[in-house]
Amino acid sequence: MTYTAPVKDMIASLNAVGIEKLEGMAEFENYDPDILLPVLEEAGKFISDVVAPLNTVGHEVGSKLVGNTVTSPDGFKDAYTQLREAGWIGLQFPEKWGGQGMPRTVAMAVAEMLHSANMSFALCPMLSCGAIEALIEHGTPDLQNAYLPKLVSGEWAGTMNLTEPQAGSDVGALKSKAVPLDDGSYEITGQKIYITWGEHELTENIIHLVLARLPNAPAGSRGISLFLVPKFHVGDDGQLGERNGVQCIGLEKKMGIHASPTCVMEFDGAKGWMIGQENKGLACMFTMMNAARLQVGIQGVGVAEAATQTAVTYAKDRRQGKSATWAGEGSSPIIYHSDVQRNLMIMSSKTAAARAICFGCALAADRAVGETDPSLKQKFALQEEVLTPIAKAWSTDLGVSASSIGVQIHGGMGFMSETLAAQLFLDSRIAPIYEGTNGIQAADLVGRKLQLGNGDGVSSLFDDIEQTIVDTKASADPILRESSDRLKDALSALKRATSWLNTHLKNDKSKALSVATPYLDL
Amino acid sequence: MTYTAPVKDMIASLNAVGIEKLEGMAEFENYDPDILLPVLEEAGKFISDVVAPLNTVGHEVGSKLVGNTVTSPDGFKDAYTQLREAGWIGLQFPEKWGGQGMPRTVAMAVAEMLHSANMSFALCPMLSCGAIEALIEHGTPDLQNAYLPKLVSGEWAGTMNLTEPQAGSDVGALKSKAVPLDDGSYEITGQKIYITWGEHELTENIIHLVLARLPNAPAGSRGISLFLVPKFHVGDDGQLGERNGVQCIGLEKKMGIHASPTCVMEFDGAKGWMIGQENKGLACMFTMMNAARLQVGIQGVGVAEAATQTAVTYAKDRRQGKSATWAGEGSSPIIYHSDVQRNLMIMSSKTAAARAICFGCALAADRAVGETDPSLKQKFALQEEVLTPIAKAWSTDLGVSASSIGVQIHGGMGFMSETLAAQLFLDSRIAPIYEGTNGIQAADLVGRKLQLGNGDGVSSLFDDIEQTIVDTKASADPILRESSDRLKDALSALKRATSWLNTHLKNDKSKALSVATPYLDL
Repeated sequence: MTYTAPVKDMIASLNAVGIEKLEGMAEFENYDPDILLPVLEEAGKFISDVVAPLNTVGHEVGSKLVGNTVTSPDGFKDAYTQLREAGWIGLQFPEKWGGQGMPRTVAMAVAEMLHSANMSFALCPMLSCGAIEALIEHGTPDLQNAYLPKLVSGEWAGTMNLTEPQAGSDVGALKSKAVPLDDGSYEITGQKIYITWGEHELTENIIHLVLARLPNAPAGSRGISLFLVPKFHVGDDGQLGERNGVQCIGLEKKMGIHASPTCVMEFDGAKGWMIGQENKGLACMFTMMNAARLQVGIQGVGVAEAATQTAVTYAKDRRQGKSATWAGEGSSPIIYHSDVQRNLMIMSSKTAAARAICFGCALAADRAVGETDPSLKQKFALQEEVLTPIAKAWSTDLGVSASSIGVQIHGGMGFMSETLAAQLFLDSRIAPIYEGTNGIQAADLVGRKLQLGNGDGVSSLFDDIEQTIVDTKASADPILRESSDRLKDALSALKRATSWLNTHLKNDKSKALSVATPYLDL
Repeated sequence: MTYTAPVKDMIASLNAVGIEKLEGMAEFENYDPDILLPVLEEAGKFISDVVAPLNTVGHEVGSKLVGNTVTSPDGFKDAYTQLREAGWIGLQFPEKWGGQGMPRTVAMAVAEMLHSANMSFALCPMLSCGAIEALIEHGTPDLQNAYLPKLVSGEWAGTMNLTEPQAGSDVGALKSKAVPLDDGSYEITGQKIYITWGEHELTENIIHLVLARLPNAPAGSRGISLFLVPKFHVGDDGQLGERNGVQCIGLEKKMGIHASPTCVMEFDGAKGWMIGQENKGLACMFTMMNAARLQVGIQGVGVAEAATQTAVTYAKDRRQGKSATWAGEGSSPIIYHSDVQRNLMIMSSKTAAARAICFGCALAADRAVGETDPSLKQKFALQEEVLTPIAKAWSTDLGVSASSIGVQIHGGMGFMSETLAAQLFLDSRIAPIYEGTNGIQAADLVGRKLQLGNGDGVSSLFDDIEQTIVDTKASADPILRESSDRLKDALSALKRATSWLNTHLKNDKSKALSVATPYLDL
């Protein structure tokens, strides 16, 4: 595969969402606008050279379970080692834990590159990020000291163990048990499914974050707690000890992301430690989930970008028929056909839109942390909350639709399993499902996020859109001025819909939720 | 799989498009409204019982090439034999050739059932239909007598050999050669790709219809001719003789329709006979293609229907969370969640719409043949021409989008290769590509069909829509009256777009073609 990181497009998008607001924030002491270009170029070069070439073998060979060991396709372990040694895994984490102290917004651009180049591969460090965030936010100092440095460096990987057969979207229905032991640890027993990179040999240890139920915990989601369960025990000296009572007992056969092992994990009296408070596991889970949701959104962007690049390359090369706009000899490259051009424009313009939504969400997260004025902190915390389900759902739907257009541009070739166009389409299809289906995202937006801060979350977004209407109306470009009028109509429709929802949420919640998905798209 | 033929929905749709107009037509002497229900019920029962259960093994095992022999999954040959013995293959063909003399409209309903139940399997008789139509329309009496009875009975199967590596959408770029021999036959040499059911053992002979170029034929699409090339020679007594010089040298590895062998066919001095006139192969090909395009459209409907049934079944069974509308114990079946309901409504309503478009197109084809008034014949011939690209493109896009929603409703399970939801999504993806990509369909609609009969083809459709606006406006149902207003707005937009296109087709064809796809959707 030839993937070229779209560094210029990314920087334009970062500037459009206002990355300059992060300059000088104490939280991101290492961030400096001058390093943005070199950082992204360096990441792009590494990912194009080392990670992208493994995408095909990943699709064709996949990860395999032999006994209880999962083997990755050739080259994956070496590429992972290079990735962590270059420091990319800890990019957005504090220097205190061995990270680079960069804003999440910058890390998001690098994550997009990884997902474009090799979505299966990128899932491994992505899951580690979720575990790291949960530990930073909710872990005891002992747990943090024991686990964070190795996780941030990438020497160890992290996982999220939530789903059980009867507990998918409804995580509160889970049954795994955690029994307290005398030494303050817990004995975890139960079976988890759909565990991404739940077992592998890319790292010397794997740190599982596991939702389970204490004895006599309340039923439902108010009775779940979060536990840290290492694959290998870690001694006080940091040395790895014996294997813990957790193993992979099966791999799912999936339509895509073949190289990413989707594991059935069995916890059989595994020793674990609680993260956060008893029965408050859901709050810790949402720390992981929110970060993961935005990451999955950027996955959608990454796949859409890769599909666009792949389709453009093919359309320039493949010759069929003769377009009136083609002055050369013989058949024209199909990129000269106007229907192909329209398709490519849809792919690239929507990819740019989704990228800006995700970068905007990451920037809101950074400003929520980095702003010093409490009212600004609150404003951006709310914006992050509102934008997260939109970033996740809209971008991953785009990942599927853009890669489907990519298949279409390839014609019959796009239906052949071995083409990259087909792989991207197959890989993309999981993203609207995991980390909360897109239907759940829409329900979250309408059922929870509209009400946040008395509606301040959405209204501050509306203000931003209002400003864009004013700015574009004043543009010298007539097309931009026309877009301004369309945006004005769209905002007016959005406000009407919001007001309708706020009314109906009070008296007929099911009716309100029935239009949650179209509302999110709007 | 449990597939239940939606006989009631089909009959409602057939009545809505006006199947009663076929009563008493000499062309369809065997058609009688009283037999419609029993015919469809009988077909539905057979297809549910015999064809549908083979869908899973078809997906998991697929067809295999061993030497030059293609083996089908267990059960396929027996099911095919039962299908032909019951007379379903010749349903729409004249009794003269051993068919049942039924209207195409009725055959279309049966075809939908086959595609719902097992799209890979259904492709085999579908391809035979195209070959039969070309022979009936363009074959010499000798060829008709020698081949039609066995094709119509299904004892032999037919194929379409068009595509070559450099000649896909641009079929005029093909290079296969046909050299005339002294006995009036031709020697065919060349390689064809993407040949559906190009080789198999379901039937004792396979009749290939092959596009090739005579020596000194003009370049491009005006220099191609159509040839009939049997797998086994047929003696004057109808007995099968030696193997002809054509064989399958490879099978493609595809993301879906695994049981349908997609063959690379090598013609190495194979003996063939011309169908139609020299260098007029394109006209014959369009006879096959037009029939096949509508059949592919109904494939989209069939997959969408199967995806809807599968999703409804799953949504009634799977329990997650608790909807406010659920009064039972414990978690609610997810069909009680309003987002799931909205998704199912979109699937079923659009499936009904696509079915009506396809049935309407088939009815226009039947009336073009069966009406005795020449002006009516002409009117419906034009309607068929206009509706064919819409039936093909809109329905197959729906096949993909509906089966994608089906995957979504299944959650993580929908991404697992072995689920029917996943299979339908993977199978569906080919239909917007083959028999002319949907982009080609849109270009055909805008570039050719708008002008047909001085625009009479589209304007007679507009008249029909106008009548629907009047009828629905007079309805007692307030929702139908509101729909009437929406339809009025849509028709007005459609007329404006048509007029814009007619202007731009004259002075900037590329610009006109750039909006062909959105126009087709409109």
